Amino acid sequence: MSLALQLARKGVYTARPNPCVGCVIVNDGVIVGEGWHQQFGQAHAEINALKQAGDKARGATCYVTLEPCAHMGKTGPCANALVDAGIKQVIAAMGDPNPRVSGKGFDILRDAGIEVKVGLLEASAKLINKGFISRMQRNRPWVICKLAMSLDGRTALANGKSKWITGPAARADVQKLRARQDAIITGIGTVIADNPSLTVRAADTMEDDDPWFTEANKNGFQQPKRVLLDPNQKASGQEKVFNADTQVFWVTRRPIDSALDDHIVNWSATDALPALLEEMVKVGCNSVLLEAGHTLAGSFLKAGLIDELVVYMAPKLMGSTAMGLVSLDLDCMQDIVDLELTDLRKVGNDIRMTYQVKGD
Amino acid sequence: MSLALQLARKGVYTARPNPCVGCVIVNDGVIVGEGWHQQFGQAHAEINALKQAGDKARGATCYVTLEPCAHMGKTGPCANALVDAGIKQVIAAMGDPNPRVSGKGFDILRDAGIEVKVGLLEASAKLINKGFISRMQRNRPWVICKLAMSLDGRTALANGKSKWITGPAARADVQKLRARQDAIITGIGTVIADNPSLTVRAADTMEDDDPWFTEANKNGFQQPKRVLLDPNQKASGQEKVFNADTQVFWVTRRPIDSALDDHIVNWSATDALPALLEEMVKVGCNSVLLEAGHTLAGSFLKAGLIDELVVYMAPKLMGSTAMGLVSLDLDCMQDIVDLELTDLRKVGNDIRMTYQVKGD
Repeated sequence: MSLALQLARKGVYTARPNPCVGCVIVNDGVIVGEGWHQQFGQAHAEINALKQAGDKARGATCYVTLEPCAHMGKTGPCANALVDAGIKQVIAAMGDPNPRVSGKGFDILRDAGIEVKVGLLEASAKLINKGFISRMQRNRPWVICKLAMSLDGRTALANGKSKWITGPAARADVQKLRARQDAIITGIGTVIADNPSLTVRAADTMEDDDPWFTEANKNGFQQPKRVLLDPNQKASGQEKVFNADTQVFWVTRRPIDSALDDHIVNWSATDALPALLEEMVKVGCNSVLLEAGHTLAGSFLKAGLIDELVVYMAPKLMGSTAMGLVSLDLDCMQDIVDLELTDLRKVGNDIRMTYQVKGD
Repeated sequence: MSLALQLARKGVYTARPNPCVGCVIVNDGVIVGEGWHQQFGQAHAEINALKQAGDKARGATCYVTLEPCAHMGKTGPCANALVDAGIKQVIAAMGDPNPRVSGKGFDILRDAGIEVKVGLLEASAKLINKGFISRMQRNRPWVICKLAMSLDGRTALANGKSKWITGPAARADVQKLRARQDAIITGIGTVIADNPSLTVRAADTMEDDDPWFTEANKNGFQQPKRVLLDPNQKASGQEKVFNADTQVFWVTRRPIDSALDDHIVNWSATDALPALLEEMVKVGCNSVLLEAGHTLAGSFLKAGLIDELVVYMAPKLMGSTAMGLVSLDLDCMQDIVDLELTDLRKVGNDIRMTYQVKGD
């Protein structure tokens, strides 16, 4: 199952909006097939593993990180394929998180006399697909807020000067973080201040040590969508974030003046954040990255809509007049936002900390 | 030499104000003597190692982390003892940092025909005695500033509420950090707000995994001295910091009204920070810990008097109205204080980061 999980992880840059799935087929103690879900619309992990196993799938055990599908999607139900191949036992890390189909894949297997066990390394399997699970079970994407700050929690000097707080390794790491998301949300303040394009630039990841990212880049993976929150329509439509690399959702209360390019979608719908996240589910977002200033980040936090914080901390003190990390007005100890550290590492000269937001 | 350095480290809680020194004597490939400097006034590392080696010191090689002393101190010159024991070769990690005696120990050895090599694992040896080296070479102690903060760089809510930002493991770790220093400096603001005693409490270190700390505590090691910066004499003399556990230096511009207890020393001298640090050298301080609020910490930083920051970061967001880490008024990117991360680890649910301040 560990190997199946490793295989599943290979899909983190390319499988979306499908879940990442890995599959290993073992016959008589020997691995006869390995597969993973590479790209939306292509074969599922089980099908790839069965293809490799061929006749040796007969009587074998199948380790799979997610319940085999029971529906006729783009590639046909995997559960039936496992039955047809003569698999004897299926060990799955977790059931399908989609409440409408959960258990149906296992039912097909059991009805065909296959022994089914569920739950092996379940926690690890859930971690890989937290975005997919969030979309299926909460009807909203997994929301990651990326922050870059100095040791004293500052993001820019009072006069707004802020370029390059963190070093090149951290910036390269951000490219990979972006590449794993379905969409990037930003605010008009950030667009006006920094004019970022918010696309994944492979060239910036020179210190990269992740072969799957390199591979995904080579095969031209899908750029994350971009969402610009601009209620009063301060953007002109000419900013870098509107470039044609991928779709842009321009969230604004006012009607857009000029004819838009095809890749720009005007979401006049709403600027209420929960409603926005529901809209994002509709366009297939499992997980989104919030790359915004302290005001918007604070609004998401106050609304309880951030699941995870990824914080890059530079070895610097920027001083007490500099801008704070998030705008968050708390005055009693009970209101403090509690976090749980899930990962800690050095990235170049900076530190990267990953926290899950507790509660809600 | 690695073993000698390990032995030297055993003295970190007890050797001060002497340096930590370790010594290993090897005869014909076999370790025949090990020693370390345990406590001020007691035998030096070389003497302890020679005692264990006995006759086997003759013709042996002596690995020592610091140049053997040449002066008749409380225990007699170690260089002569090595000569008398018939040592054939001395390999030292570093010379004596005291410019007045540096090289004299090696001279005694060379004059007696002993082969001397210097510089093996020198960087590690310097790290262990950075306080002693600072006192000898810069005439000021190594100054460590301890800070505890939330992820967003806050130390207390705007209303001052702050108790227990970090968890029990971090607080236990602070006890060990204190125990390695010669003195703790604090300001009147901290004393009024928190009324800390600033002594090492072994009972608080229940999650301790450092046998040498436990050992040092059992043998009743010397509590660090305490220094209270209180220019306008706002303290009454009854605060916990004035308890009798160890000396207190009360730095105040006004004369002290009442007769002081023996352990309270009135330093009316000066409140200029560099002068204060020079005074601390005179009372034998190698390294001091600044445990103060953002104002005093900011003053030390602005004066370029902090060598190292030890920051405990709790997994919390305290909000943007809360108090900042240090009072530091910077408005151009060039003024930013650059740091170098030298250690990073998880302590309980908190993160501990150690930085050296660059430049000056």
